[in-house]
Amino acid sequence: MANAKELSGAGLRGQIAGKTALSTVGKTGSGLTYRGYDVKDLAAHCEFEEVAHLILKGELPNQAELAAYKQRLKAMRNLPQALKEVLERIPASAHPMDVMRTGCSMLGNIETEQSFAQQHDATDRLLAIFPGLINYWYNFSHNGKRIEVETAADSIAEQFLWTLHGEKPTQLHTDVMNASLILYAEHEFNASTFTARVCASTLSDMHSCITGAIGSLRGPLHGGANEAAMELIEKMDNPDDAEAKLLGMLERKEKIMGFGHAIYAESDPRNAVIKEWSEKLAKANGDTSLYDISVRCESVMWREKKLFCNADFFHASAYNYMGIPTKLFTPIFVCSRLTGWAAHVMEQRADNRIIRPSAEYTGVEPRSVKPIAQR
Amino acid sequence: MANAKELSGAGLRGQIAGKTALSTVGKTGSGLTYRGYDVKDLAAHCEFEEVAHLILKGELPNQAELAAYKQRLKAMRNLPQALKEVLERIPASAHPMDVMRTGCSMLGNIETEQSFAQQHDATDRLLAIFPGLINYWYNFSHNGKRIEVETAADSIAEQFLWTLHGEKPTQLHTDVMNASLILYAEHEFNASTFTARVCASTLSDMHSCITGAIGSLRGPLHGGANEAAMELIEKMDNPDDAEAKLLGMLERKEKIMGFGHAIYAESDPRNAVIKEWSEKLAKANGDTSLYDISVRCESVMWREKKLFCNADFFHASAYNYMGIPTKLFTPIFVCSRLTGWAAHVMEQRADNRIIRPSAEYTGVEPRSVKPIAQR
Repeated sequence: MANAKELSGAGLRGQIAGKTALSTVGKTGSGLTYRGYDVKDLAAHCEFEEVAHLILKGELPNQAELAAYKQRLKAMRNLPQALKEVLERIPASAHPMDVMRTGCSMLGNIETEQSFAQQHDATDRLLAIFPGLINYWYNFSHNGKRIEVETAADSIAEQFLWTLHGEKPTQLHTDVMNASLILYAEHEFNASTFTARVCASTLSDMHSCITGAIGSLRGPLHGGANEAAMELIEKMDNPDDAEAKLLGMLERKEKIMGFGHAIYAESDPRNAVIKEWSEKLAKANGDTSLYDISVRCESVMWREKKLFCNADFFHASAYNYMGIPTKLFTPIFVCSRLTGWAAHVMEQRADNRIIRPSAEYTGVEPRSVKPIAQR
Repeated sequence: MANAKELSGAGLRGQIAGKTALSTVGKTGSGLTYRGYDVKDLAAHCEFEEVAHLILKGELPNQAELAAYKQRLKAMRNLPQALKEVLERIPASAHPMDVMRTGCSMLGNIETEQSFAQQHDATDRLLAIFPGLINYWYNFSHNGKRIEVETAADSIAEQFLWTLHGEKPTQLHTDVMNASLILYAEHEFNASTFTARVCASTLSDMHSCITGAIGSLRGPLHGGANEAAMELIEKMDNPDDAEAKLLGMLERKEKIMGFGHAIYAESDPRNAVIKEWSEKLAKANGDTSLYDISVRCESVMWREKKLFCNADFFHASAYNYMGIPTKLFTPIFVCSRLTGWAAHVMEQRADNRIIRPSAEYTGVEPRSVKPIAQR
């Protein structure tokens, strides 16, 4: 388009690509709000289903609404036989995000969203099924075990840990999972959410939008920072060793994951919450070394580079204390962010125009096809 | 972001969201070029593999390069057993685009792109496998038949028709499929391609990018217009009936698919090509009524609304003359557009910044969480 407006930044950075009533990110330099509520306030006082209700339906539920919503989700946990059989055909060597993407896509074949009137049903079903889906595959492919996904777990947080470990988790672990799911639930027009909105703008179905978002979250520039943080700290023997190793990495200009943020300038509001939970887990565990190492990393990175921990850094130690395999960290992100993705899909649908930007052409000038014998 | 720049149009329309050397759309009001070549020139002189080579590798191949590329693709057609078993678990009632999305995603589990050095391998494999993949599912779910996908077909065009019908197609049908695959191969920053680029910008893998793009193409505002055109014309008995029905639809302000275009102002350059092929098919078929009906629709829409046929309208009759079930029209689009999607993924990777726009906040003001008992 000859008269298209050129944008100043690559990656649409700082460009408004649409409207949202769902969240604000970094409005004051450090804040994150979901429908007006500070994420720290929500993490301190709510369980994840309250926040999912807020994000998807607009308001925090009262006691009766919450009970009904949790009961509804609990009744939707079963995995269809065809989906189980698909998961059983995915090898242990697969990337767990590929498993999530394929499981979500497969469900779209057998429980297709037939009209937008079903968008809450489709979303709730995915919320209910995702923890069991990934842990069914994990336990089958890694341990040869077909787990029961219809547990007695009271919540999505409990369901994740229960289906992973095969037993009811402690209250502390459930509390940490609730906080973690709340912290990751929504984050404005990040790349995976924007993927979901572009897909939604063609009026495609919910499973297509969520499948696409999972594929984008899989990228190392987006999800996966908590896994990278774990790989970093598990190589460190103690705080002094951590400091020496970090200084070496900084000198060699190696990439260190879990610090800084594209939008937040001063700090990530989610860090303080998960750091506190990581400390509690360390104390409950008895061996606090992973937490101590993480704290030292935080102070070294701040002292040397003025870089703060983002949401991902203390998630690594927290998840590890709960016995969660590192490769399952990003799938937990999916179980949580699904709420934001689906709410953005609904918002896009409610006031839609297909997202179809233009490009600046940098290619060759017009030319004619030569017969193949003359090439 | 308080200081983010507001964009004028919804859906990023007319906004430059990045650079591309792959194509120009509507630069002169009606043109479409792939790497500088007019699409009409390509459709007249090339087969699809030449155009795939052009789009993916930058230049049209010479005779030896084309022969090697076709041989390479031919050798990559086998469906892994696990993928077959997944396809066999998808019911006949499923949306064929959900099948394509799931098949592509499943392949990512068992043949994961481990690094960007494999991006051409991953793309070529998808190019080779897609026709057989959708027709394996179609024949199994609809006819209970496990087809052989490693046919003797010489090209992707022939492979699609051969795996669908179980026999070598005529030269005319192969020629039409070649033209069709060329016409749909690439179209700048349309919604599915933009989906692939947003996903690629997180440095995710090729299967995630293509899976996401398929999900976006599934939307009725994007792919599927040729299916809608078929549903329209198959209800018409003859040209006069077509005119009467169209006038009635126009009077009732019903949506008529296959006409007009978001970017092209005067005409769609692809229409003349597929219209000519549709006429040849009609004559070869003996019963020209579907073509005659389509021609009348074209003249009525131009006379009444100054709306021109886009690429999709004469595709409906052309595909129908070749015995292709209507529900498989959009999957053919996937077999073709895969080339453009993958080339855009490679282009994004080569000069990447994560695509992460901002949003204008329209939600509620800051508020505090009330204890649940007080809600």
